[in-house]
Amino acid sequence: MPSFGNPQDPAFQRMSRSLDFDRRLAFHDVRQSRAHVAMLADCGIVAADDAAQLRGALDAVEKELANGEFEFREDDEDIHMAVERRVTELAGAAGGRLHTARSRNDQVATDLALYTAERADDAARRARELQAELLALAERHADWPMPGYTHLQRAQPVYLGHHLLAYFWMVERDRVRLERVRHDALARLPLGSGALAGVNFPVDRAQVAAELGFTGVSENSIDAVSNRDYALDYLAAAATCATHLSRLGAELVLWAGDEFGFCTLAPEWTSGSSIMPQKRNPDAAELLRAKAPRVAGHLVALHGVMHGLPLAYSKDLQEDKEHLFDAADTLELCLDAATGMLAGIAFHRDRLAEAAGDEMLAATDVADLLVRRGVPFREAHGIVAGLVRTALERGTTLSSLRPEDLKAHSEHLDDEMTALLRDRSWLDSKVSAGGTGAGPLADQIQAAHRALDGSSR
Amino acid sequence: MPSFGNPQDPAFQRMSRSLDFDRRLAFHDVRQSRAHVAMLADCGIVAADDAAQLRGALDAVEKELANGEFEFREDDEDIHMAVERRVTELAGAAGGRLHTARSRNDQVATDLALYTAERADDAARRARELQAELLALAERHADWPMPGYTHLQRAQPVYLGHHLLAYFWMVERDRVRLERVRHDALARLPLGSGALAGVNFPVDRAQVAAELGFTGVSENSIDAVSNRDYALDYLAAAATCATHLSRLGAELVLWAGDEFGFCTLAPEWTSGSSIMPQKRNPDAAELLRAKAPRVAGHLVALHGVMHGLPLAYSKDLQEDKEHLFDAADTLELCLDAATGMLAGIAFHRDRLAEAAGDEMLAATDVADLLVRRGVPFREAHGIVAGLVRTALERGTTLSSLRPEDLKAHSEHLDDEMTALLRDRSWLDSKVSAGGTGAGPLADQIQAAHRALDGSSR
Amino acid sequence: MPSFGNPQDPAFQRMSRSLDFDRRLAFHDVRQSRAHVAMLADCGIVAADDAAQLRGALDAVEKELANGEFEFREDDEDIHMAVERRVTELAGAAGGRLHTARSRNDQVATDLALYTAERADDAARRARELQAELLALAERHADWPMPGYTHLQRAQPVYLGHHLLAYFWMVERDRVRLERVRHDALARLPLGSGALAGVNFPVDRAQVAAELGFTGVSENSIDAVSNRDYALDYLAAAATCATHLSRLGAELVLWAGDEFGFCTLAPEWTSGSSIMPQKRNPDAAELLRAKAPRVAGHLVALHGVMHGLPLAYSKDLQEDKEHLFDAADTLELCLDAATGMLAGIAFHRDRLAEAAGDEMLAATDVADLLVRRGVPFREAHGIVAGLVRTALERGTTLSSLRPEDLKAHSEHLDDEMTALLRDRSWLDSKVSAGGTGAGPLADQIQAAHRALDGSSR
Amino acid sequence: MPSFGNPQDPAFQRMSRSLDFDRRLAFHDVRQSRAHVAMLADCGIVAADDAAQLRGALDAVEKELANGEFEFREDDEDIHMAVERRVTELAGAAGGRLHTARSRNDQVATDLALYTAERADDAARRARELQAELLALAERHADWPMPGYTHLQRAQPVYLGHHLLAYFWMVERDRVRLERVRHDALARLPLGSGALAGVNFPVDRAQVAAELGFTGVSENSIDAVSNRDYALDYLAAAATCATHLSRLGAELVLWAGDEFGFCTLAPEWTSGSSIMPQKRNPDAAELLRAKAPRVAGHLVALHGVMHGLPLAYSKDLQEDKEHLFDAADTLELCLDAATGMLAGIAFHRDRLAEAAGDEMLAATDVADLLVRRGVPFREAHGIVAGLVRTALERGTTLSSLRPEDLKAHSEHLDDEMTALLRDRSWLDSKVSAGGTGAGPLADQIQAAHRALDGSSR
Repeated sequence: MPSFGNPQDPAFQRMSRSLDFDRRLAFHDVRQSRAHVAMLADCGIVAADDAAQLRGALDAVEKELANGEFEFREDDEDIHMAVERRVTELAGAAGGRLHTARSRNDQVATDLALYTAERADDAARRARELQAELLALAERHADWPMPGYTHLQRAQPVYLGHHLLAYFWMVERDRVRLERVRHDALARLPLGSGALAGVNFPVDRAQVAAELGFTGVSENSIDAVSNRDYALDYLAAAATCATHLSRLGAELVLWAGDEFGFCTLAPEWTSGSSIMPQKRNPDAAELLRAKAPRVAGHLVALHGVMHGLPLAYSKDLQEDKEHLFDAADTLELCLDAATGMLAGIAFHRDRLAEAAGDEMLAATDVADLLVRRGVPFREAHGIVAGLVRTALERGTTLSSLRPEDLKAHSEHLDDEMTALLRDRSWLDSKVSAGGTGAGPLADQIQAAHRALDGSSR
Repeated sequence: MPSFGNPQDPAFQRMSRSLDFDRRLAFHDVRQSRAHVAMLADCGIVAADDAAQLRGALDAVEKELANGEFEFREDDEDIHMAVERRVTELAGAAGGRLHTARSRNDQVATDLALYTAERADDAARRARELQAELLALAERHADWPMPGYTHLQRAQPVYLGHHLLAYFWMVERDRVRLERVRHDALARLPLGSGALAGVNFPVDRAQVAAELGFTGVSENSIDAVSNRDYALDYLAAAATCATHLSRLGAELVLWAGDEFGFCTLAPEWTSGSSIMPQKRNPDAAELLRAKAPRVAGHLVALHGVMHGLPLAYSKDLQEDKEHLFDAADTLELCLDAATGMLAGIAFHRDRLAEAAGDEMLAATDVADLLVRRGVPFREAHGIVAGLVRTALERGTTLSSLRPEDLKAHSEHLDDEMTALLRDRSWLDSKVSAGGTGAGPLADQIQAAHRALDGSSR
Repeated sequence: MPSFGNPQDPAFQRMSRSLDFDRRLAFHDVRQSRAHVAMLADCGIVAADDAAQLRGALDAVEKELANGEFEFREDDEDIHMAVERRVTELAGAAGGRLHTARSRNDQVATDLALYTAERADDAARRARELQAELLALAERHADWPMPGYTHLQRAQPVYLGHHLLAYFWMVERDRVRLERVRHDALARLPLGSGALAGVNFPVDRAQVAAELGFTGVSENSIDAVSNRDYALDYLAAAATCATHLSRLGAELVLWAGDEFGFCTLAPEWTSGSSIMPQKRNPDAAELLRAKAPRVAGHLVALHGVMHGLPLAYSKDLQEDKEHLFDAADTLELCLDAATGMLAGIAFHRDRLAEAAGDEMLAATDVADLLVRRGVPFREAHGIVAGLVRTALERGTTLSSLRPEDLKAHSEHLDDEMTALLRDRSWLDSKVSAGGTGAGPLADQIQAAHRALDGSSR
Repeated sequence: MPSFGNPQDPAFQRMSRSLDFDRRLAFHDVRQSRAHVAMLADCGIVAADDAAQLRGALDAVEKELANGEFEFREDDEDIHMAVERRVTELAGAAGGRLHTARSRNDQVATDLALYTAERADDAARRARELQAELLALAERHADWPMPGYTHLQRAQPVYLGHHLLAYFWMVERDRVRLERVRHDALARLPLGSGALAGVNFPVDRAQVAAELGFTGVSENSIDAVSNRDYALDYLAAAATCATHLSRLGAELVLWAGDEFGFCTLAPEWTSGSSIMPQKRNPDAAELLRAKAPRVAGHLVALHGVMHGLPLAYSKDLQEDKEHLFDAADTLELCLDAATGMLAGIAFHRDRLAEAAGDEMLAATDVADLLVRRGVPFREAHGIVAGLVRTALERGTTLSSLRPEDLKAHSEHLDDEMTALLRDRSWLDSKVSAGGTGAGPLADQIQAAHRALDGSSR
């Protein structure tokens, strides 16, 4: 609010006014005010009829907001003043009692905690939808071989379903993280902390907490108005999730390219070229890749805002909202885009299989065959390395080497090796839990279903 | 390891070699190898006598490491190769079996997860020590008035103990966060994921997990070797904690300065001036303030490393360790410094009380008095504002205004107001839960004790 | 544009559409198109009458934009398509020739370079205004003593004008940096690079460059469409400037507080309290402090976007604009706010002088007096330290110590020391260039005037 | 230095002691001291024989440092104290005069500015070496066609030499930026600013500046000791350069993979697999990609340190060095690695040509042929799009379509189109300046030579 008796400089107003972005908190502010008024009445701090008038005005404000009929004024500097101003217009004298036992400092912190919890919840739900899509896709492609990569070099064959489930588990961690953010944001109600020192009235904070879905009240009023951990928590969880999605985006860009050719993205999820109708630019996948630094940027920026900030409330804390809002918008957009893109993707079985078919990818399996026959691991690797070199020098494949060639490298190399290579059984030989073999993959798919079913919605 | 038959370029070695920093993982690597060997033997993958030899060699390596007698070689490119090389020297042929059913990719991920859990635990313990110090300090200063600030302007008086406890609750959240990091880092054992696809042996991953303190095994081998969420989680928790400490550091710098003069830091925690013996520079507090961006920088850097990285393992992941290590060193140093500084701090009761004594800080209380008499909050504020202006214009205090002056502003203003101001009861009027009043403060101190007692150590 | 024959998914459109923010480039796009058309005509690539029609349409579009009459359509995905669409509506068949020898890739890069240069110029001009305000303020307070601080401890007295000029020189470096950004952004015209490989027409790029104010053309078409260095350069310069301003903001917050009490901010630049009319919250100064991390966050985010991005154009580059736009808005707002706040500031001579008056701040001067008499610096410091201790122990001041006390510490200590302390000449004894003494300060003020006069506007 | 008469807490020492990293400034500190002493003598502030002794001691210290014989002591808290301590041991009483008219604050700032300039110079030289390698490589591959990419989709053919030169120009901007950093770091000597206020002696700062290679002296002593812009400037330039190199690294990883197969990295620059001798992991390229976020992390961290920091010197500024040092080490390592990797790279002409050979990449050229015949650009694109669809539907190539098919799409399509496609002249049709055509490419190579020759070394 203006210093007494002086209009604010327009540049100051531009800098200071938060209504353009904090109007997102409008419904949370009304909800909070309603719970506050109910408590004030129950505690005898505000008379019943005043409370009734306030409740009526708050209901009306909520309706105006919902219908887009709420009129903001030029001099509403933030959403909290706008709501209170309108309540006062509607409730008359009683309106002046709304702010009893409350300060803008604990009010803002409460609204933002509510908002953070809601957005964390939204993002967790979207994460779950992405998981469901990944799981369905993985089931449909559970037995499609493709090359697994290390160093972006083909290393060992895996099933496409297995590769896709790697993302399922990343997003599972993200979902759990987001649900914790929601939980933590609602762990301690700030309201009732006043400007910083508590309030002069015997308020029942527990009642308000219960009404608003908080599980407890803040233990310290100074901390309550200075704290933005919930926003940092959201941003940290969002940054990790966005970083995961950027990996998915990067892989889709690669896979959709001519060289990999592993998949085609749906036309609904690509942009075209005005001249080359066969061309589909993976814009959505590229943006999925490009959005993660934006969220990480918001995270580091809010850390910067909080850095070295004396207690209790400082205006610097107003710089929490835009970072949080844009990060939440970005994350939800990315989650939706990932789900949508995957829903429309078409994989190319032949290209994947061809890329996975190189016998050289079975070198580890041949070595492990030797290990099972008693050759120490490091020695077995040396033998197979020699074998591979021989094949390369002769321009042939491992399975085409003659028995005498095999024997020259090791007495343990025989028809079983050739059979192993011919059967292409290498992929299913990955029998360890969590491995790509058909057996553990089936188990993994069951585990994924359990994770989804066990999730909160 | 070198490409076949070619020495590596020295510049490449400088870039690629990680032994200088990953040697911190030496004990974790030995521990892991021991669990791995035991499982291999139990599963019949390695013969009992080979396993015995490996165990013996691992014990010897551990002893050499502990005694500082382990000799690293120029061509040990990382700690894992160094340990295996030495095991092979000691165990002979059996040494070649150590790496059976294991890859460096799952090995590194396991070591780093163990390490992360350990450092999270260390930091949580130190956080608890800081909390204990804060709590003790708060109890000793529970009834020392000081000004509470908003916008770094004196706003309302609070007790110093209350202000100090604000930090207690920040660090409580940090501690809980760090314990979660520890828990999550140990939630899913990566070992047994091989290079990326699982391994060709029927390993018992659950046995290894139990032995190493993990609560489960990774569900997906590709995710297991690509995942560094535990490092990101640690860095996020560390950044928030460091940011909290930077606020404490900033306040100590302020309070130790001539203008505030609220405290004197112990000479053991300050640096002097060669010429002004009365001067004590709050270097430790300044560094506490300055270290937070370093940790946040590591966090954003690791997000950058992971950004857009295709699955599964890429060498980029080697850039996880230095960020984690330095962040952990920094955080633990900061926690210790904060504890040490507070242990030696001396507060100045008179300066604090004097700064808190301005009657103007009670303006809210006077307004709330009116509210209790039925005046709407906003109206009450207007009345008191007028009263304050009158006092300021006359160069007097609120409590010196004459009864007729009071009545001129409101019929509700009378002796009770004067009494309220004279009694200096405004501080204890903050009766709401979490407020600074003596009652809720006593409750808060009990809650803090319960939080400490209920913590894991 | 959509892939052939398929509508885009709404979620994809939300993610991909840039019109909401890139419409800021509207005028730059028109300006560029006009220069392009003129060149195409001059080179005979487009017929003169077609060119005339295009020019007419572009003029009309510009007018519509200026009058707010330009109608954007739902399916205008970016500003470039919107402008071309409208030109085609107005120019008929000739409209289809506008995009001859041009691609959206070089077009976007050119528009953004023009925009960056313009914003750098705007910011540089505002920086200059801030410098002018700082200089005027410094001149008005050139002889007001205040304490200079190290470690936020009073260290040596300086003139307030000298302290203020420290910011002048920070901003001077910012201004020079911003002017370089402008220069560099216009160093190499991207237009004429086509999609990535150059264009199939003998275009005269130099003509377009000259017309648009570029000093040369890009040497490599792939680099030209992949490059966003100008945006990084702007963000780096802006982050440093914002960081400087955050230091000013932090000092103003401190100085306006009760403990320092060095200044009062104008009511136009503070917010008030509804109840304490004497209170003025330094919101603008706090926001000045809080905005720097936002700009640094944009900088690190754009680095993240560019990280590991294959050549040439990728859609990721669309993530350059919002970072640049918000950083520029933020920086200019901060510069204006700093200028405005300083224009209305009132310093308090007595408070400053009182804080500067402590004789202890002259300890260095006393030591230097001994040095001038031949005592080695380190020894001199030891002597004065002893002297200070003596004074502190006796609860007296240095200048009140008796001659015999002085002699006990050093034979060199005599009346001259007492005179030095009494004269309060210590401040003007800082005779070195750039020092706070009246002489060098006058020189500095002259240098500042020269810097301003020599600046480009 | 310790507060008077009290040992420092070990934890405080660990936090505060900078010798472990600032010893890198040893030679700069000696060099600076030598210039300082010479000036003190010339100005008559220190006697000639004292100066001679100091010079002798400084020479001895320098030799000890160079020979690795300088003994650091446990209680040397930083390099400046270590050097002065040793000088005093060697020069006796005269040693105490070394610090005359100097403070650690201006001393540190001067050393670090010198160091920054040196590292910027080193990096610029290495950048030039990388440019030379890129240019040589580009010349050797000037006429090797390859696909140019947008959205990582093949878009238009370019010459490999042209693609490589895109990096040349990125690094050219980096080199210029680094040279500016060097220039700016030496623009204003801090020495002579004292602790913050200037010094009490009539020093000749210009003499010291000239001796140390500075082009001027700082105009304001407070700014001089508070300023770390040179470090921020270095970090900003380094971050941009590292980001450029990360793009090169990412492309090399892609190109060396099986799918692209465009190049093979030298074995000296790859790591091998113990079992697959044909496999070469592009570790160096991956690390080149992964190091950029580290440098950007340092940049944002130093911004964080400076954020909101009151003037003049604060201990927080000690957090400048490690960020700068590690960034410089990282950048130089990356530059060397890039140069080394490129020196040993082998490109595969056939794979590149095959990938570039798809006639569809010429679609733009066909459209431009129509444009030259008077068809408006947008219409021409529509015609060719239809043509491409026809070819795709029939499973044939553009050049195999029959004349009647062509006429069906446009009367302007005839033999010339077929000739254009058959001649594969599309690549050289990019005649615009900076384009990939043979003509402009030759010009570009000349420009690159001029840029290198015109550079400072």
